[in-house]
Amino acid sequence: MPEQSPFDLTEGDPFGPHTLPYGVFSTADAPGLRRLGVRYGRHVLDLGALPDALPDVVPAAHAALLAADTLNPLLAAGRPVWQEVHAAVRTALTDPAHRTTVAPLLRPLDDVTLHLPFDVADYVDFYSSEHHATNVGRIFRPDDAALPPNWKHLPIGYHGRAGTVVVSGTPVVRPHGQRKAPADAAPVFGPSTRLDIEAEVGFVVGTPSTLHAPVGLDAFRTHVFGVCLVNDWSARDIQAWEYVPLGPFLGKSFATSVSAWITPLDAFDAARTAPPARDVPPLPYLDDTAAEPGGLDLRIEVRLNGEVLSRPPFAAMYWTAAQQLAHLTVNGASLRTGDLYASGTVSGPEPDQLGCLLELTRGKGPYLQDGDEVTLTAWAPGPDGVRIGLGEVTGRVLPALEDPAGAPA
Amino acid sequence: MPEQSPFDLTEGDPFGPHTLPYGVFSTADAPGLRRLGVRYGRHVLDLGALPDALPDVVPAAHAALLAADTLNPLLAAGRPVWQEVHAAVRTALTDPAHRTTVAPLLRPLDDVTLHLPFDVADYVDFYSSEHHATNVGRIFRPDDAALPPNWKHLPIGYHGRAGTVVVSGTPVVRPHGQRKAPADAAPVFGPSTRLDIEAEVGFVVGTPSTLHAPVGLDAFRTHVFGVCLVNDWSARDIQAWEYVPLGPFLGKSFATSVSAWITPLDAFDAARTAPPARDVPPLPYLDDTAAEPGGLDLRIEVRLNGEVLSRPPFAAMYWTAAQQLAHLTVNGASLRTGDLYASGTVSGPEPDQLGCLLELTRGKGPYLQDGDEVTLTAWAPGPDGVRIGLGEVTGRVLPALEDPAGAPA
Repeated sequence: MPEQSPFDLTEGDPFGPHTLPYGVFSTADAPGLRRLGVRYGRHVLDLGALPDALPDVVPAAHAALLAADTLNPLLAAGRPVWQEVHAAVRTALTDPAHRTTVAPLLRPLDDVTLHLPFDVADYVDFYSSEHHATNVGRIFRPDDAALPPNWKHLPIGYHGRAGTVVVSGTPVVRPHGQRKAPADAAPVFGPSTRLDIEAEVGFVVGTPSTLHAPVGLDAFRTHVFGVCLVNDWSARDIQAWEYVPLGPFLGKSFATSVSAWITPLDAFDAARTAPPARDVPPLPYLDDTAAEPGGLDLRIEVRLNGEVLSRPPFAAMYWTAAQQLAHLTVNGASLRTGDLYASGTVSGPEPDQLGCLLELTRGKGPYLQDGDEVTLTAWAPGPDGVRIGLGEVTGRVLPALEDPAGAPA
Repeated sequence: MPEQSPFDLTEGDPFGPHTLPYGVFSTADAPGLRRLGVRYGRHVLDLGALPDALPDVVPAAHAALLAADTLNPLLAAGRPVWQEVHAAVRTALTDPAHRTTVAPLLRPLDDVTLHLPFDVADYVDFYSSEHHATNVGRIFRPDDAALPPNWKHLPIGYHGRAGTVVVSGTPVVRPHGQRKAPADAAPVFGPSTRLDIEAEVGFVVGTPSTLHAPVGLDAFRTHVFGVCLVNDWSARDIQAWEYVPLGPFLGKSFATSVSAWITPLDAFDAARTAPPARDVPPLPYLDDTAAEPGGLDLRIEVRLNGEVLSRPPFAAMYWTAAQQLAHLTVNGASLRTGDLYASGTVSGPEPDQLGCLLELTRGKGPYLQDGDEVTLTAWAPGPDGVRIGLGEVTGRVLPALEDPAGAPA
């Protein structure tokens, strides 16, 4: 069988010319050299080499951005540059006149190593699925109302650890920590026995904002570059013992996995959809009734060791990414290039639409075992019936270290 | 009166040869050029110019670190380099043979602009004063036990916003946000009416750690470069409404002020002191009974518009900085150069030792008014009766913006 041309995509490939996500890769012959790439089907376009190869297509002014070893300079360049680069990449990949020139710049995906695509500035995690928040509330706080009183008035969020955001494929070592069952007299220390996933969607900030200047709903597209998948690994036993009153800390900070590909926001134009009806009217800075539809019809799939566990629908999220950004900045907090904010666990109303094991097992487990591999994938409807893919986020659980510092002798 | 020599310090000056804190400054003739400096009395030593001026004193290998525009390269260089640079600076400033050479490198403090001294990686805020946690618990959660059940088992902490850490002197604009008094039917949006301070001590990480490898109590000095003062500005009304269940977010993220000077950890050797007796035995990874004394006898002073408001004693903190670091990493979370973690509000047992207005006014206010200026200073006992100063952290409250994005029309 002859080798397929990299330009001939398999029918239905979700990484076609309407998707074109950005990432960072290296190759075996130069493992220390990180380069920007764009995924096209089962290949990666070497973006750093494109300006020299196609000087008439790629504006020379962008050569330095594309020669960087992380996406941050491109993210910082702002929306007009994002659109120019996207147009150039699309022309390079789809105009038959360029095939001979571009073909040598396409590496098979299987031949490259993918890296964390951008340097994460601040990482914020929201909690914006009503189904998830209700389910978790019932399990963690059975004596209270399932939703806290603030839930429908603001998109609850908190800061997570940016330094432990890792790229898809990074193994996750089972964390040690304190846990205390309600019946125990005192906490015990040891490897988490309730290691869980959280299937989320992440939004990557490109254009920074100014301190003291809130970013309103209508400025969402000015600041947000693109979308990724996030698995916010969670040690439920550590989290349950530590989180009152200041929120999750070590139960989350050991690892947060993101997909290696960041898909530009504009790729999801056909997937825009109205969010669920709000039964509490949002305050004006969160009121999106007159804005463009803020929901996104992303269909997520969660697989555990290859078996489909769940299909969470992102369209069911109560708070949208634009509302989350407006809330995050309404107190004057500024955005930096590389800020990442995640949606919170995506869960739908049905039992096979839940985004974490805590909900899927109603708090009873089983949770993740050593050796388990969890993979999230997602796609969205694109124009003319095509699918827009998000890069997968996958990770395997490794056993806890036998002798961590400070463990009992 | 003849101008005083920069080498002749006023008696009792807490910025003498035993202190030597690091910062970043610029001068009016080159406002865009940031340089590393060391504070000596009322002057700043131009560190970037030192290797050329005293090649026999400053190892040439460190010239690039000292020519940087932020402390991060020096922080990353590790403890042996920190000690070599410190010894060189001390020789330059105290050996009379070098006075003629060094004098031109000393700028009056009043003639320079100070900048954020390092790029903050992750910012973590702890909650480690038993007096503060008890007082706050009584005010925020009057129906529960004052201390949450986990408090004496682990140093509670959470991640804050690194991107809004600002240097001393930066004005603080009163933030907008949602608040809801218990009697109100729904939240209202507007400028915070309960703007508060939190007097804290910050620890700056130099040497990074490896993912999955906890940093035990005995590795504290390997990783922590130095100490600063922190004012963790807090909007109590925003915080009270938002913080259940995921912790503080917008009530804190609008601004966190740090001193312009980072004092090396070794300067506090004479200030080491035993922490308070723990009435609950800590788990082994937090058990410091056999370690060097982990407390620090820092005496903080809080001034409001020039009047002393409080004198919080850092020696009264229940959890030490070494325990906080051990806890922060016990789940395998890694450290990066530039990580900042703060102690939590420092409050002592006496009414004039409380570190925030919430406690000082027993939750009744008044809180900060527009135009108020808050300044934190601190010193610690050094060798031979000298004082070791921490750089001040000061900030003035500016009125809320009149028309922030998203405010009601």
